[in-house]
Amino acid sequence: MGLTLAEKILSQRAGREVRAGELVVVEVDQVMVVDSIAGSFFKRLQQLGAAPRFPEKVAIVIDHVAPAANVEVAKAQKEIREWGNRYGCRVFDVGRGICHQVLVEEGLAQPGGIVLGSDSHSTTYGGIACFGSGMGATDIALAAASGRTWLRVPETVKVTFRGRLAPGATAKDAALEMVRVLTADGATYMSIEIHLLDGAESLTRSQRLTLANLTVEAGAKCGLVVPSGEILELYDVPTWLYPDPDAVYAKEVEIDLSTLTPRVSVPFYVDNVEEVAAVRGKKVDQVFVGTCTNGRLDDLHEVAAILKGRKVAPGVRMLVIPASSEVLEAAAADGTLLTLLQAGATIGTPGCGPCMGRHQGVLAPGEVCVSTSNRNFRGRMGAADAEIYLASPRVAAATAVAGYITTPEELEVARA
Amino acid sequence: MGLTLAEKILSQRAGREVRAGELVVVEVDQVMVVDSIAGSFFKRLQQLGAAPRFPEKVAIVIDHVAPAANVEVAKAQKEIREWGNRYGCRVFDVGRGICHQVLVEEGLAQPGGIVLGSDSHSTTYGGIACFGSGMGATDIALAAASGRTWLRVPETVKVTFRGRLAPGATAKDAALEMVRVLTADGATYMSIEIHLLDGAESLTRSQRLTLANLTVEAGAKCGLVVPSGEILELYDVPTWLYPDPDAVYAKEVEIDLSTLTPRVSVPFYVDNVEEVAAVRGKKVDQVFVGTCTNGRLDDLHEVAAILKGRKVAPGVRMLVIPASSEVLEAAAADGTLLTLLQAGATIGTPGCGPCMGRHQGVLAPGEVCVSTSNRNFRGRMGAADAEIYLASPRVAAATAVAGYITTPEELEVARA
Repeated sequence: MGLTLAEKILSQRAGREVRAGELVVVEVDQVMVVDSIAGSFFKRLQQLGAAPRFPEKVAIVIDHVAPAANVEVAKAQKEIREWGNRYGCRVFDVGRGICHQVLVEEGLAQPGGIVLGSDSHSTTYGGIACFGSGMGATDIALAAASGRTWLRVPETVKVTFRGRLAPGATAKDAALEMVRVLTADGATYMSIEIHLLDGAESLTRSQRLTLANLTVEAGAKCGLVVPSGEILELYDVPTWLYPDPDAVYAKEVEIDLSTLTPRVSVPFYVDNVEEVAAVRGKKVDQVFVGTCTNGRLDDLHEVAAILKGRKVAPGVRMLVIPASSEVLEAAAADGTLLTLLQAGATIGTPGCGPCMGRHQGVLAPGEVCVSTSNRNFRGRMGAADAEIYLASPRVAAATAVAGYITTPEELEVARA
Repeated sequence: MGLTLAEKILSQRAGREVRAGELVVVEVDQVMVVDSIAGSFFKRLQQLGAAPRFPEKVAIVIDHVAPAANVEVAKAQKEIREWGNRYGCRVFDVGRGICHQVLVEEGLAQPGGIVLGSDSHSTTYGGIACFGSGMGATDIALAAASGRTWLRVPETVKVTFRGRLAPGATAKDAALEMVRVLTADGATYMSIEIHLLDGAESLTRSQRLTLANLTVEAGAKCGLVVPSGEILELYDVPTWLYPDPDAVYAKEVEIDLSTLTPRVSVPFYVDNVEEVAAVRGKKVDQVFVGTCTNGRLDDLHEVAAILKGRKVAPGVRMLVIPASSEVLEAAAADGTLLTLLQAGATIGTPGCGPCMGRHQGVLAPGEVCVSTSNRNFRGRMGAADAEIYLASPRVAAATAVAGYITTPEELEVARA
């Protein structure tokens, strides 16, 4: 019997064939630490009496609360810079962007590689078939100290997306549909192996990152998109980096992209996914476009296409926070940013923004937000009863214009 | 004996000739309330059992902590929106910009008018010869309830700027020099009447706003720039809006712009003003360009001219926060923003930014910041021992490139 993509990567790295359920110790390519975890990470390393074994394999990204929102945060960020200088580790400072986006842009995540991150959405790297997984400060510190980590090889759920995206549907809708079908704990500690077939190979790197990003919302240890299309153009993909045809899967699911409709994840669970029609008309206070899920240039392009010549509805705050400085610079260069600003959107410093409710757009009690992010848990963006509806950038943009949850297609009908 | 400009405005409004020392009750054109004071303002009005007498004369601007940095702030901002809707008062929401800049852009401050603001830098309106003054929540609430305020007519200090700005010198340097000469309490409860002569009339509206903005740092009740140049092109200036030649001044000061050199205000007092040479070489952690003092388009142009083709020094965080959405949009449209981003600057949501240390770039203990803002008091931007050096956008830009305090001219020498 053959191997899944996760088994392939871990076997290659372990130097022997390993299968689901086995314990392996493997070298990691990058240990990624975010600002909000860095303090615990330093403390664990200190308790171990250890320094980073391979400084070039440790990257700290100041993204969760950047620029610093208070003195405590400022102190923690200062400590990060000093620590990075002391040990020669990379520090991506305020404004560079969200950890996952930055590591991909910097080439620190590569197909077939292994990246451990202190952020739960480290599954994102799977968009380029890099084994990415989120861990706590202790595991991360051990990995930094040794250059290795231990893992139980995960079982695999195979998710096959077929066809080209229906008009109006996006990778975000596909990802939300995947989470709905699998449910929030449907892939706990598993690898979600994503196959793109019958036209779905055309999904771009950015779209694949969106898919892999949300695999953790089904509980996955990692989410790996089988390389094809743009990935083969952008990377030297190792020839072994494919699942065997006779690989063994714990579960198999198929999703037809050609009939997919826009989705929205309704409070307070990510797998509480509905068609937009189910919540159409819900009034919103804030629309947030950004995050590691949907803060890339193609996302901003989608939003700009809808906002062009329109205005954000009175009473709605529309906040656009690019995922990285590279994204922002590109959006400033190609006119996208100007279109957003002319429509009445405002911009924030590249980073995580209000995604986890720590600054830059925290929600008040009773407020409603449509967000392109990845979690709508109770209290996630601020007040416990604030409601977060997760949607695609297209639905977010249309909602900002209408003032209530809707799709661009319905906006057109309303205008006609 | 004639009248000063402050006496002229208050006499015109009082309907009788009034002079320094007299008490007057006058109608106000706008009562401006910022987010951080709004709660106290509402409470005072409630205690008075009063509503805004002229809703169109009350404007609330959400600028001090915007977007909301925590749930308490989000709640306060929600209350502002609800209150504004209830009474039909203008609310300028998250991202619109800094109160003073917004009121000028919206035409709510006009030459010869009176604007009371809940922010100390309400003297800024004097740049267009509008009597602007900062007051506390109680006075502001009374003004909103009655449409009027009472004032002791201030004595006046006459400051004459002569000549065209020397190469390398800016309106900010002129303003800092004025504060140095007058000292921090040299014009307490006075009107600083600014005369621009012998070429100084060419100072633009933006530059005049910078001058008037800093008059409060000498303790002034208001700072009024005698209308000339661009102000006459932009506004219908009333013919009576000039001081009489034989007006009586408490003090007179002359500053020669043609020999002015770049200045920096050294911690922890604004009037602690030195030539840049005195602190040249001081290493910085953060450079902040923005605020009601220097966050306008011409300021960003100055910065972009210096950053073009250069990079922000490693280890320096350069934060640019436009004073308003209009400024940001213009900078996005004319390529200025792209130049800043390409140099490695990052951008923040239009508003006050980290100026008063409440979010978006708070300083850690021991950090050093060059800022284009207006106050360098102990703890102003965060940690008590963090150092803030106030300077012009040009000096800020050069410092960001060098990594230490310097001027653009010295940068050129260093490169040659």
